[in-house]
Amino acid sequence: MKPQFTPDFAKAGGLITAVTVDAEGGDVLMVAYMNEEAFNLTLETGKVHYFSRSRGKLWKKGESSGNMQELVELRVDCDADAVVVVARQSGPACHEGYKSCFFRTVAADGSLVENSPRLMTPEQMYGGKA
Amino acid sequence: MKPQFTPDFAKAGGLITAVTVDAEGGDVLMVAYMNEEAFNLTLETGKVHYFSRSRGKLWKKGESSGNMQELVELRVDCDADAVVVVARQSGPACHEGYKSCFFRTVAADGSLVENSPRLMTPEQMYGGKA
Repeated sequence: MKPQFTPDFAKAGGLITAVTVDAEGGDVLMVAYMNEEAFNLTLETGKVHYFSRSRGKLWKKGESSGNMQELVELRVDCDADAVVVVARQSGPACHEGYKSCFFRTVAADGSLVENSPRLMTPEQMYGGKA
Repeated sequence: MKPQFTPDFAKAGGLITAVTVDAEGGDVLMVAYMNEEAFNLTLETGKVHYFSRSRGKLWKKGESSGNMQELVELRVDCDADAVVVVARQSGPACHEGYKSCFFRTVAADGSLVENSPRLMTPEQMYGGKA
């Protein structure tokens, strides 16, 4: 399915910001980016795709870790340059092995405190590849 | 209070991505950006500050609309270039008068459908200034 709606990819050099939240509980899992191909593939396949800025290529979430994201709902912001991806996450979303990439909170003294347990080690996730 | 922890502002030209979620219910309200000054002022004052890319200056949320954000919790992602801001939002977060900027969902046919009611008109929010 080719979506009728097209986000404003031109605004930031071909990419929109994607905020992915857990369909169960609503926690923010990660922030990443989508180009038009990733956006369309996400809608067409129901599997969440991003564009990896560091690797410069399409990134199907879970392609190396196996921890895929199933699309539940896609919301668009007022100026169409960011989306909220509501997804069912299998396993950790974070490459560090936590459910969410936002596993640290800034404490009152300015230090960082972990706010959730590590579910897996990176070695368990990537089989020593990471 | 000068925070001990400093995000990776250098990675994206002095800015980090800020995803602001409603302390009541956890909905994603908006996506914006913080420079180091906005980040420090948010922690020091408890009022959420951003850096407006379009205006090229510090932006205290609510300075024109009166709809401020009170900081409840600040979470940092694994590579320290994005934060989740948990905040108490007074009034609409979106300049369009909706609680959240993500007030539209992409429907199965690719069209956009409003997922929440408009709380105020922009005229009510900005008194005809916007």
